[in-house]
Amino acid sequence: MPAPTITLTTDFGLVDHFAGSMKGVILGIAPRVQIVDITHDVQPFEITEGAFVIAQAYRYFPRKTVHVIVVDPGVGSERRPILAEMAGQYFVAPDNGVLSMIFSREAKKKVRHVTNDKYFLQPVSRTFHGRDVFAPVGAHLASGVPAARFGKTIEDFVKLAIDKPTRMGKRVWTGTILKVDRFGNLITNLHIDEFPDVQTRPFELNAGLQQISRLAATFSECAPGEFFVVVGSSGYLEVAANQGSAAKMLGVRSGSPVELTLY
Amino acid sequence: MPAPTITLTTDFGLVDHFAGSMKGVILGIAPRVQIVDITHDVQPFEITEGAFVIAQAYRYFPRKTVHVIVVDPGVGSERRPILAEMAGQYFVAPDNGVLSMIFSREAKKKVRHVTNDKYFLQPVSRTFHGRDVFAPVGAHLASGVPAARFGKTIEDFVKLAIDKPTRMGKRVWTGTILKVDRFGNLITNLHIDEFPDVQTRPFELNAGLQQISRLAATFSECAPGEFFVVVGSSGYLEVAANQGSAAKMLGVRSGSPVELTLY
Amino acid sequence: MPAPTITLTTDFGLVDHFAGSMKGVILGIAPRVQIVDITHDVQPFEITEGAFVIAQAYRYFPRKTVHVIVVDPGVGSERRPILAEMAGQYFVAPDNGVLSMIFSREAKKKVRHVTNDKYFLQPVSRTFHGRDVFAPVGAHLASGVPAARFGKTIEDFVKLAIDKPTRMGKRVWTGTILKVDRFGNLITNLHIDEFPDVQTRPFELNAGLQQISRLAATFSECAPGEFFVVVGSSGYLEVAANQGSAAKMLGVRSGSPVELTLY
Repeated sequence: MPAPTITLTTDFGLVDHFAGSMKGVILGIAPRVQIVDITHDVQPFEITEGAFVIAQAYRYFPRKTVHVIVVDPGVGSERRPILAEMAGQYFVAPDNGVLSMIFSREAKKKVRHVTNDKYFLQPVSRTFHGRDVFAPVGAHLASGVPAARFGKTIEDFVKLAIDKPTRMGKRVWTGTILKVDRFGNLITNLHIDEFPDVQTRPFELNAGLQQISRLAATFSECAPGEFFVVVGSSGYLEVAANQGSAAKMLGVRSGSPVELTLY
Repeated sequence: MPAPTITLTTDFGLVDHFAGSMKGVILGIAPRVQIVDITHDVQPFEITEGAFVIAQAYRYFPRKTVHVIVVDPGVGSERRPILAEMAGQYFVAPDNGVLSMIFSREAKKKVRHVTNDKYFLQPVSRTFHGRDVFAPVGAHLASGVPAARFGKTIEDFVKLAIDKPTRMGKRVWTGTILKVDRFGNLITNLHIDEFPDVQTRPFELNAGLQQISRLAATFSECAPGEFFVVVGSSGYLEVAANQGSAAKMLGVRSGSPVELTLY
Repeated sequence: MPAPTITLTTDFGLVDHFAGSMKGVILGIAPRVQIVDITHDVQPFEITEGAFVIAQAYRYFPRKTVHVIVVDPGVGSERRPILAEMAGQYFVAPDNGVLSMIFSREAKKKVRHVTNDKYFLQPVSRTFHGRDVFAPVGAHLASGVPAARFGKTIEDFVKLAIDKPTRMGKRVWTGTILKVDRFGNLITNLHIDEFPDVQTRPFELNAGLQQISRLAATFSECAPGEFFVVVGSSGYLEVAANQGSAAKMLGVRSGSPVELTLY
């Protein structure tokens, strides 16, 4: 039987010992598991960005994979740890909306409030539930403990409308920046499937103080420093600047608003 | 039998091929091993920081884990490679004090001078003992070679007083910065268990040219840019600046001194 | 039987989900494989740097290791995916010269044009062949599919003269910067074995607008800010500045030219 896989998506960075400590806890419980880092470089506390990253990656993992997602600004408060079963896989995360983009994509799902502290690392610290709650729950799950043992199903888990721009007028939508990629491109939550008209009609996309009305097919067709919109590999509209970081030039970050007007 | 685990803690960074080459050597010797990165981003040559990081992480790993630590400013000189048995685990590192914080925590320990070059990658280079000495020794250990085969026990291994602030006067202690975390917070070697009075009495902590006399319970209760002290997740006093990097604003780094006065 | 090893060398960075998604694809096909990151921080689209990094690391991996290298500025164009058998190992990469330094080192090699799309992830995207072509081909190879199944051997694969400086005059050679390491040192393609005279005769090495004529044995013997040449751990001449990033001070990057004059 192949080793089960646990993935990690966190905002802990790679400079400190945090990701390493989580892996130690996992291997102590499930020594045969495969541990895969999705990323540890989610911008600190940015739930939207964590939600986007795991939603992009999970589909490519085999059935029964356990995804542990720790972007957890509410650690130490009353926010619940949850365990979701979707798409034949498991997701262990805080109940703060970080699974929202997968919730909205997967019709069939079962979500549990994780309450059985027999599966936690004791004593549970006030600040590091990644190590004390999420990692050990994920590891016990990967080593065969049935999901039902961790807690009761709930229906009122947090769902954020991360991937749903808000219609503000007949031709105006407000969206958000899901992620700034490593080149400084801004991945918005405006999907080409919902806004196919940007390909054929004039539009204006506002990000920071900039108005952008050009859709480019490739990065290279624009002048250096020019801002433009491209359809990214995930289908979302991205704001880019040729030979520069659009995020830095515009002073925006993940979570910042954008506004689209179709003419 | 589960695969044994080897952890890596180095200052090699992730941009170059160094960590990858070490893993190649390990898998050539011990193909079933689990390799876990604690971090490769220890500040170059900062023994204090390496000592802190591995001391924070090792407890969470299962028995028999082999920890390979390579922060090695003395590579190519006469400093010895050592193999320490502590806490049911193995530690392979240069004898430069990088294991000091674990030495001071674990009463029971056996330390060997690694001399048996049959377990080295030949020829041993002058500059990359991570690949040629520490990785292969760790891998042979993980694949079952008894510790005694690598060399004789020694007593005069290097112990640095990393976690011991120095009392300079009746109410004054000099400490050091163990690590700058990714937010720029300064983790000092002043532990709340040794200085519980900061919670109840006036104090002054000097770092860089700044005097800090405020203890905060959370990051959010302070004004932007204000400096304050918090008790970190490991129990050490940390110097932080709300919404900014204390390290950059104060011009200090790991290894820099701090001074605590209790009134 | 030990798990086969797949290494990854890309320019995707660790901030996004790309490396994680590739690993998901691999584990779906070859669940027992060991995945090792060489680096994901090759400078974007820098074929020369990717070629250098994998050439430094591959020798340390066991026989049958599958190396997947994705530095692929031509993704979406007609450039071919290739599979090379060299040194008892496998290399899966775009046919853009990224394997050149290994090609020039290994006399015995067999290179195939990968055409059998049965081993691709369908549908193949226009922009992410790392996930859709190279990762699944590597995984099928690691799980035992014979190399011949992937496509026919070719002879006209791309070979770049990355490790061959060009003689421009009797005493003058033009070389290139293979890589900027994490300290900002410039690793050139001028190897000490080909230019042993720099150790005994006056020379001038031009990088950016700087003339450097000093060969140092160690970093510490030079004045702060001074530029000098050292023989790096791979045998290549490196340009360094004591206590500073030579790359930033000189305004150069990997791929930039250097010129050596021997007097």
